[in-house]
Amino acid sequence: MKEYILLIDTYDSTGLVYNVSKILFANHLNIEQNAEFVDKDTNKFFMRTVISGDVNCDLLLKELKEALPKESTIKLNQKSKKDIVILATKESHVLGDLLIRYIDGELDANIKAVIANHDYLKDLVEKFDIPFYCISAENMEREAHEDLIIEKIQEYNPELIVLAKYMRILTPKFVKAFPKKVLNIHHSFLPAFIGANPYKQAHHRGVKIIGATAHYVTDDLDEGPIIFQDVVNVDHTYSWQDMRRAGRNVEKVVLSNALQYLLEDRVFVYENKTVIL
Amino acid sequence: MKEYILLIDTYDSTGLVYNVSKILFANHLNIEQNAEFVDKDTNKFFMRTVISGDVNCDLLLKELKEALPKESTIKLNQKSKKDIVILATKESHVLGDLLIRYIDGELDANIKAVIANHDYLKDLVEKFDIPFYCISAENMEREAHEDLIIEKIQEYNPELIVLAKYMRILTPKFVKAFPKKVLNIHHSFLPAFIGANPYKQAHHRGVKIIGATAHYVTDDLDEGPIIFQDVVNVDHTYSWQDMRRAGRNVEKVVLSNALQYLLEDRVFVYENKTVIL
Amino acid sequence: MKEYILLIDTYDSTGLVYNVSKILFANHLNIEQNAEFVDKDTNKFFMRTVISGDVNCDLLLKELKEALPKESTIKLNQKSKKDIVILATKESHVLGDLLIRYIDGELDANIKAVIANHDYLKDLVEKFDIPFYCISAENMEREAHEDLIIEKIQEYNPELIVLAKYMRILTPKFVKAFPKKVLNIHHSFLPAFIGANPYKQAHHRGVKIIGATAHYVTDDLDEGPIIFQDVVNVDHTYSWQDMRRAGRNVEKVVLSNALQYLLEDRVFVYENKTVIL
Amino acid sequence: MKEYILLIDTYDSTGLVYNVSKILFANHLNIEQNAEFVDKDTNKFFMRTVISGDVNCDLLLKELKEALPKESTIKLNQKSKKDIVILATKESHVLGDLLIRYIDGELDANIKAVIANHDYLKDLVEKFDIPFYCISAENMEREAHEDLIIEKIQEYNPELIVLAKYMRILTPKFVKAFPKKVLNIHHSFLPAFIGANPYKQAHHRGVKIIGATAHYVTDDLDEGPIIFQDVVNVDHTYSWQDMRRAGRNVEKVVLSNALQYLLEDRVFVYENKTVIL
Repeated sequence: MKEYILLIDTYDSTGLVYNVSKILFANHLNIEQNAEFVDKDTNKFFMRTVISGDVNCDLLLKELKEALPKESTIKLNQKSKKDIVILATKESHVLGDLLIRYIDGELDANIKAVIANHDYLKDLVEKFDIPFYCISAENMEREAHEDLIIEKIQEYNPELIVLAKYMRILTPKFVKAFPKKVLNIHHSFLPAFIGANPYKQAHHRGVKIIGATAHYVTDDLDEGPIIFQDVVNVDHTYSWQDMRRAGRNVEKVVLSNALQYLLEDRVFVYENKTVIL
Repeated sequence: MKEYILLIDTYDSTGLVYNVSKILFANHLNIEQNAEFVDKDTNKFFMRTVISGDVNCDLLLKELKEALPKESTIKLNQKSKKDIVILATKESHVLGDLLIRYIDGELDANIKAVIANHDYLKDLVEKFDIPFYCISAENMEREAHEDLIIEKIQEYNPELIVLAKYMRILTPKFVKAFPKKVLNIHHSFLPAFIGANPYKQAHHRGVKIIGATAHYVTDDLDEGPIIFQDVVNVDHTYSWQDMRRAGRNVEKVVLSNALQYLLEDRVFVYENKTVIL
Repeated sequence: MKEYILLIDTYDSTGLVYNVSKILFANHLNIEQNAEFVDKDTNKFFMRTVISGDVNCDLLLKELKEALPKESTIKLNQKSKKDIVILATKESHVLGDLLIRYIDGELDANIKAVIANHDYLKDLVEKFDIPFYCISAENMEREAHEDLIIEKIQEYNPELIVLAKYMRILTPKFVKAFPKKVLNIHHSFLPAFIGANPYKQAHHRGVKIIGATAHYVTDDLDEGPIIFQDVVNVDHTYSWQDMRRAGRNVEKVVLSNALQYLLEDRVFVYENKTVIL
Repeated sequence: MKEYILLIDTYDSTGLVYNVSKILFANHLNIEQNAEFVDKDTNKFFMRTVISGDVNCDLLLKELKEALPKESTIKLNQKSKKDIVILATKESHVLGDLLIRYIDGELDANIKAVIANHDYLKDLVEKFDIPFYCISAENMEREAHEDLIIEKIQEYNPELIVLAKYMRILTPKFVKAFPKKVLNIHHSFLPAFIGANPYKQAHHRGVKIIGATAHYVTDDLDEGPIIFQDVVNVDHTYSWQDMRRAGRNVEKVVLSNALQYLLEDRVFVYENKTVIL
């Protein structure tokens, strides 16, 4: 039986769960999973329900819209693999991890293309029969280069864009072109070590733990809503290169976990934070 | 406004959430928090709902019982501090941690008494104006000693009994006297190192991580439903005493987190496992 | 047999280990533990050696000074409990943890006194028969208040001063009065969330992990050399108060581990970083 | 300048460090890194020294042998990439991780061949231009099949054999053929869940943390010396398949870290435990 994911983002009021469950019940739909969260500070209400049954999407959405407050955001996605496009630069550890998962069927996504600003990863990507595009930024204005990237991405119309260590700063135009669709892995435990060379910064500061952060990309560099973080212990024997080496294991696991959340439609965003249901 | 915690443990069927939320809505009650879980393997359904409003407990329970499947377990607890009795032996780290939280108001519980099979901790406990009872096991049969302990506990009629490194094995009689009410902290990452001297066992085996496990006590030693676990890294420089020292920090944090879950009525048990909602 | 800890901090050159071990051998001393570290970037050499035997301290230091480069720092401490003074404000979790360890003999230190800028913790401290001094900062200039604190500390001539959640900013005068002797616990994963209310900051930023940092106090607030850090996972359900609650467990474990390193003479400082041998 | 790794495994006695450092000094060799460990229980002494300079290996070993106790084990390896052979079955996550590191130059090893008992991974391995051999165990006695595997490995004379989720039990003959050369990744936090289907076991037991363990292979299944372990949190929402998915990230990181230790000659074994210097 087909499964659908119902996502509701609204303000809390009495009877929300009742109203939603009444409609699902009346439509003879089964609730396979259900999770809600109310943020007391902002009175926001989030609900993610996995339903199965003979769903008439248009009708169901119509009934829900009528029953819920006007300003509610309601989405109903059929469970399926999402199309993604990956951006990278030169490093292979995060990209490679995605590729290995992909060919083994462990990634709930279709990798439509990999785009990089260097050709260093071309051989690797093409081993996996995935289109690889090198769009060099050399001798180009930032905006002109980015326009080419945007154009290439749009050819594939992906549901998600994954920055797998894409080492260029994105402009607001890019962010606007793909709202809430761009996932980035930052190689530090944000908000520590924002900006360039976080491992060098971490080494200089003498921290005893380093980390990585997967977040949605917004206009503010390294300030987007955080989806997943993890850390690893280091000590004084680590050069910054050793930290980078240790950090790479964290980066790929963090990106992979965050991506999994997005592929399962589990992430809500509000006030620059995420709710993971 | 008073808050109540509604706990439902039943078998999954269509309309459960709908039926419960309908009754809450009809009684003009607000859902402050709500969480459900369905175990697909066993078809078990668990629901924990924090409600506020003018609750008529008897009426509400009656309506819920009528609406839910017959074999359902339904509980409705007013949010309040629970009475607990602590059992200990000689070690002070877990007990001390509870005492410090207690006097600072951070523990959502009333410590009614501490009972130990040695008098070593008497001074510590009495500093905090809590009744301390030493019930020595010397020259006594296990059952006779345990009967005295049971009797003393029953004087206080606690909602929970916390074994804060109580180093004696309990008989089925004890477990039966306080069903689903006894929380233990085991000084290993169960099911590794069941039984005596887990740190010595861990040292002998040469593990690189040690841990602690908080679990409900059942008839099978160290086999009860696990509530919380945590770990800490060790290496070859650790003697078994060093491991014990490092492990003590884990033990107290694990016990404390598990106890917090129990005090908040968040733990369901089925098939010797826990669901934490 | 008595044990001594030899600490050498110098610049790397050929034959250092040879020269030190030759002298120890010639003096019929046993090496119980030995660790070295060379920082390639700065060419700094650090060595910590636990020796046992019939040690003539003056003679040994003399011989070592002659054999090692002129600018070397050489210390020889007999293994023993250090005297410490604790500063606190109102929170009891870190202080309480130290007190419980102290009376159980698990802390390798003598707590000589607790000084606080409020009297809130007086009852707790006096339960443990430790002098408690409330030096209120009310209606006083920062410097005048701090002078009183310094004076009180100096009465006890401690080897270490432990800030167990002492919530006032120290002036350079304080730092100068007790160089490399002041240990602080900061309630964030530094360098994230420097300054006031780190849990509120963390909640606002929507991080998925929070932490705590033990560091030496220097003139720059929250910028001193880091000794130990640890973290704990949080999620969107955590209010900032929940984060604080979860963080407290981390704070006390982090402070306790860092203090243990200091009590064992295992920490070297250079370039605002620590080497832990 | 060439670097060498000196490894000494002996019984502790006065003057060991002195004797070794004297010989290195007399030979005009620089100590780049040095670490020792003495196990008090067994009086064992371990030393790993990275030296640079104009090394005459035969002469240096001769001098060291004369200066150290007779039963000492002394090794002197030039720093270089080691040859490895990987054994696998069907799962690609650990193998894939090694392959990605390999082509990116991050693995300090030459992967000479991959041998599997199924042909499922053939395509993946051959993408990376590495010889792949499928040696099916179908319709064969265990010993006969293993003989073929041993023979194929011996063609490559590797310094290490990495079991990257090789799902067959090895006989003592195999272990004997490659003493202290076989690294395995076990998909549980040993000694918990020895044997088959550890994720199913973990799910059945209801643990809140799962892990993975990299260890040397010995005659006793899952009982070899542990080199590295790591864990990840799980909860009641995880099916055993979810646990396996989460565990895979841990498995590949654990195997990768353990392998790195072996490639850097940092692992000593004694009494079925490891010392990592």
